[in-house]
Amino acid sequence: MHRAGRDAGFQKTSDSGAALPVALIARRGKTPCMTAVPMLESTMQDVPLTITALMRHGRRVHANARILTVDAPDSISEATFAEVADRADQLAAGLTSLGVEPGDRVGTFMWNNQRHMEAYLAIPCMGAVLHTLNIRLFPEQLTYVADHAQDKVILLDGSLAPLLARVIDQLPHVETIVTCGDGDYSALNSTKQVIDYEELVARHQPGFDYPELDERAAAAMCYTSGTTGNPKGVVYSHRSSYLHALAAQTVQGLGISHTDRILLIVPQFHANAWGMPYAAWAAGADIVMPQQFLQAGPIADIIEATKPTMSGAVPTVLNDVLTNRPDADLSSLQFVVCGGSAVPRALIEGFRDTFGVTITQAWGMTETSPLAAVGHLPRGTAPQDELDVRAKTGRIVAGVELRICDDHGNELPWDGEAQGEIEIRGPWITGSYHLDPDPEKFHDGWLRTGDVASIEPDGFVMISDRAKDVIKSGGEWISSVDLENTLMSHPAVLEAAVIGVPDERWDERPLACVVLADNATATSGELHAFLADKVVKWWLPERWAFIDEVPKTSVGKFDKKVLRARHRDGELRVEALG
Amino acid sequence: MHRAGRDAGFQKTSDSGAALPVALIARRGKTPCMTAVPMLESTMQDVPLTITALMRHGRRVHANARILTVDAPDSISEATFAEVADRADQLAAGLTSLGVEPGDRVGTFMWNNQRHMEAYLAIPCMGAVLHTLNIRLFPEQLTYVADHAQDKVILLDGSLAPLLARVIDQLPHVETIVTCGDGDYSALNSTKQVIDYEELVARHQPGFDYPELDERAAAAMCYTSGTTGNPKGVVYSHRSSYLHALAAQTVQGLGISHTDRILLIVPQFHANAWGMPYAAWAAGADIVMPQQFLQAGPIADIIEATKPTMSGAVPTVLNDVLTNRPDADLSSLQFVVCGGSAVPRALIEGFRDTFGVTITQAWGMTETSPLAAVGHLPRGTAPQDELDVRAKTGRIVAGVELRICDDHGNELPWDGEAQGEIEIRGPWITGSYHLDPDPEKFHDGWLRTGDVASIEPDGFVMISDRAKDVIKSGGEWISSVDLENTLMSHPAVLEAAVIGVPDERWDERPLACVVLADNATATSGELHAFLADKVVKWWLPERWAFIDEVPKTSVGKFDKKVLRARHRDGELRVEALG
Repeated sequence: MHRAGRDAGFQKTSDSGAALPVALIARRGKTPCMTAVPMLESTMQDVPLTITALMRHGRRVHANARILTVDAPDSISEATFAEVADRADQLAAGLTSLGVEPGDRVGTFMWNNQRHMEAYLAIPCMGAVLHTLNIRLFPEQLTYVADHAQDKVILLDGSLAPLLARVIDQLPHVETIVTCGDGDYSALNSTKQVIDYEELVARHQPGFDYPELDERAAAAMCYTSGTTGNPKGVVYSHRSSYLHALAAQTVQGLGISHTDRILLIVPQFHANAWGMPYAAWAAGADIVMPQQFLQAGPIADIIEATKPTMSGAVPTVLNDVLTNRPDADLSSLQFVVCGGSAVPRALIEGFRDTFGVTITQAWGMTETSPLAAVGHLPRGTAPQDELDVRAKTGRIVAGVELRICDDHGNELPWDGEAQGEIEIRGPWITGSYHLDPDPEKFHDGWLRTGDVASIEPDGFVMISDRAKDVIKSGGEWISSVDLENTLMSHPAVLEAAVIGVPDERWDERPLACVVLADNATATSGELHAFLADKVVKWWLPERWAFIDEVPKTSVGKFDKKVLRARHRDGELRVEALG
Repeated sequence: MHRAGRDAGFQKTSDSGAALPVALIARRGKTPCMTAVPMLESTMQDVPLTITALMRHGRRVHANARILTVDAPDSISEATFAEVADRADQLAAGLTSLGVEPGDRVGTFMWNNQRHMEAYLAIPCMGAVLHTLNIRLFPEQLTYVADHAQDKVILLDGSLAPLLARVIDQLPHVETIVTCGDGDYSALNSTKQVIDYEELVARHQPGFDYPELDERAAAAMCYTSGTTGNPKGVVYSHRSSYLHALAAQTVQGLGISHTDRILLIVPQFHANAWGMPYAAWAAGADIVMPQQFLQAGPIADIIEATKPTMSGAVPTVLNDVLTNRPDADLSSLQFVVCGGSAVPRALIEGFRDTFGVTITQAWGMTETSPLAAVGHLPRGTAPQDELDVRAKTGRIVAGVELRICDDHGNELPWDGEAQGEIEIRGPWITGSYHLDPDPEKFHDGWLRTGDVASIEPDGFVMISDRAKDVIKSGGEWISSVDLENTLMSHPAVLEAAVIGVPDERWDERPLACVVLADNATATSGELHAFLADKVVKWWLPERWAFIDEVPKTSVGKFDKKVLRARHRDGELRVEALG
């Protein structure tokens, strides 16, 4: 296997398992037949980075860690990792019996629960691809996504059956629906095979013989909920999932460990619940699965009952708890990670003052697996500066590289001032979209995120806007998000969305679209004056419109393209100041 | 690039960059020309896992983290990561000017200090291989190792010049010595080019153009200090180093983070200082480099002066501090990881009671990069059980797989009882030795560690002996280490080494070789009685020998092969009891 002497440097690398000579500075496989370039052999083992390896670790070393599922607000069931893994084995055997083969897509249309975790393990480890369908998509988006991914089997939670039934006729690739728990499945199309999850599992024994997978094989996929065009599919590999799970266990990632119990509020269909299930499985952290009980009351009750040390959620859920259950005892929570949209400073402050609980911001997207930046306090942060730091988007996580670029693709300095579009690179960042390359979204191999930010010298990212929403006024950029957040801190304002509208002199100027709170009143002049000492003068909107509601996307984000269209079509009544 | 429809599943994986069809369950490269097997494309970027990526992250995001070097007990210099990275660039350019090419080995014969960290960065990132030479090797071993690795250049600390000078004539491959700091270099052979580190660095500018490396390229190498045969070389890849650095940042690894300051007592030539330098660099943790000031007094002073949050050291150093500086204020230390040999329970207890500092055991070896098991307390450990848990070897770290096997290679259960040789597998575990395959050390691709242990159901490993030292008596195994530790808890015993000697009836029986403390007396009968209520009856040695000293290896471990040879040659005076 080894030749003696220096010649051995020209042989294969041991940890690649490759029989071909490999060039030192060439990427693997690009030049399979090129002349050998000297490279010293590493002696490391060639062990692929797979979810299967994580699965083996969790089921064995953390056999007694637990998955808790909220079956009803007052009823929580639990199973050990050993039990969950055994059932995942049975599910893998069951899906195989249904004709699922390596590379096939298996959709899940499910809440966060134990069966969904079993699917997270069984499907990728058997070599198939876990496709978590977003239960909140509009029917036409859901149809597009499930059809585009060519899901062969869909696992379906009973309470969600009516939602899937609406589109099932339009999914010719789907052969089988595996139904989970009680539900009204009568509306499901009879051309599909329908089988109960527990029945399927009961037909097989634990001990599935998982294949040895290439670490670059597809493991899971998620579609983005783009506000323009069709959703786009991101396909995670075993390698990216493994690396992301390691990163989520680092202190500067999410710090997930065997002493944690994670209340998983963020849905499993949102970027794999931010990658937390696999990290928790590898670390032996308990997971509490809240299913559909996501309102303030049940969430507060679940926290009091299960005492999680950690949670991950979007701001709206946390805000709900703060508003409606300020009496709750959340003191078990040592780490709450919040992302998905900008986290209002008032929410961070409110959690601190009301519950004594710290919220840490994190940033990422479906395309980034999603962990890219987390707002851990740097060493030596003065207590009076803590809130300012926590209000930033986050600090770049080791393993991803991040830069900001101007409109011409030139990299901008990390001075906390320059604003550019975030571009990102790394082993768990997407480099294309499934069957939809979309080269405009990439720049020299880096993903263009569409988020505009500045970066501080210590790698703290501060997102100011979406690239398509930023207002370009006289060659400078105005952050629509900053204006909105400032406006929404006015007591009379329920919602505010600011869009750029054409302006002869400045190219674009901001138009503030405001929804007043019930029974509240405020004039555009009053709101303008309110803003005057809070933002720089040239940001102040001259144009105002009072509207009944800000249009929203299927995942609840402000849909500014609708507002822009309404303005273009003359549907907004615009008041002009001064 | 993508074909529409299902066919696309048969194309290359995006994150491999491979132009070849890749089989789902075939290892990459093994079957480069085989028929395509369906595999869904992942859309992930093909970003190699390299030390270069970690270097970029640390120098940029953690530009202001610091390397502190103890230049004299009362003088500590420091440099920021940004400064260290710039100097590493200059070193890379300097080594290039000396003719170092990708794949070439560059040795370091150095203490832990800033220049050694610069070498850690420059050498692998320029594509060369960092070979950390153990300064404590016997001359013949040092010669063997540097010659076997074919080091082309050696970086040499001034105070170590006389040690290298003794062997330099026998290292024909070495072309250049780069001298670091003041020292007596007069004895270095004049046939070698000798150049001062600072002079070399000063000739070049920061901003070296690092090549894009294959992640499986060799990055660093370390030789084991085997007690039998020649030392064996372990060659780490960029991939293994990167993964290990991530693992060391996980909470259940070493938990290294940006809030840490690490006093690096374990030498940089011992398994890359347990991988801590790269983890610290990626995390932005300060590192305190103690150079040769490793005695109890200076170590205590350094801790008081620099207030590290973390340290890593072998038991002897910690024991020295406990014995000689019980007055020291070590309260800044939140995490002390200890390994390299079994950690006495008394040391853990002593640190807790004297300093209020917790010692956590970790286990690994040069072959395992080395992180394999760490003794973090499981969730819910009762306070009265803490010490028992801390006295165990450690719990298996996510990313490595571990099993125990009997003499016939059969896997044994994890019941805390069955004793077998530890075998280990993972992406940072060696799969062979440099130019010295040694297939006996491997079993189905797993590394045979030579350590005998039991494993508890929760993945806690308890090492009882080295495989070659375990005593096989009547088909059962007796742990020589357990007998030694128990004997050494007798006040009259300074050292004890127990070896297996041939026995007609039982195959082997233990022979206890005891070194009495100065002015202490104890008979074999007294020691036998002392053991009687502490170990099971059939373990009790009938054979005793009182010796002046236990022979030791170059790194200070008991050298039992010498004792066994002395016994064989009739050089030990053996007393037989009952």
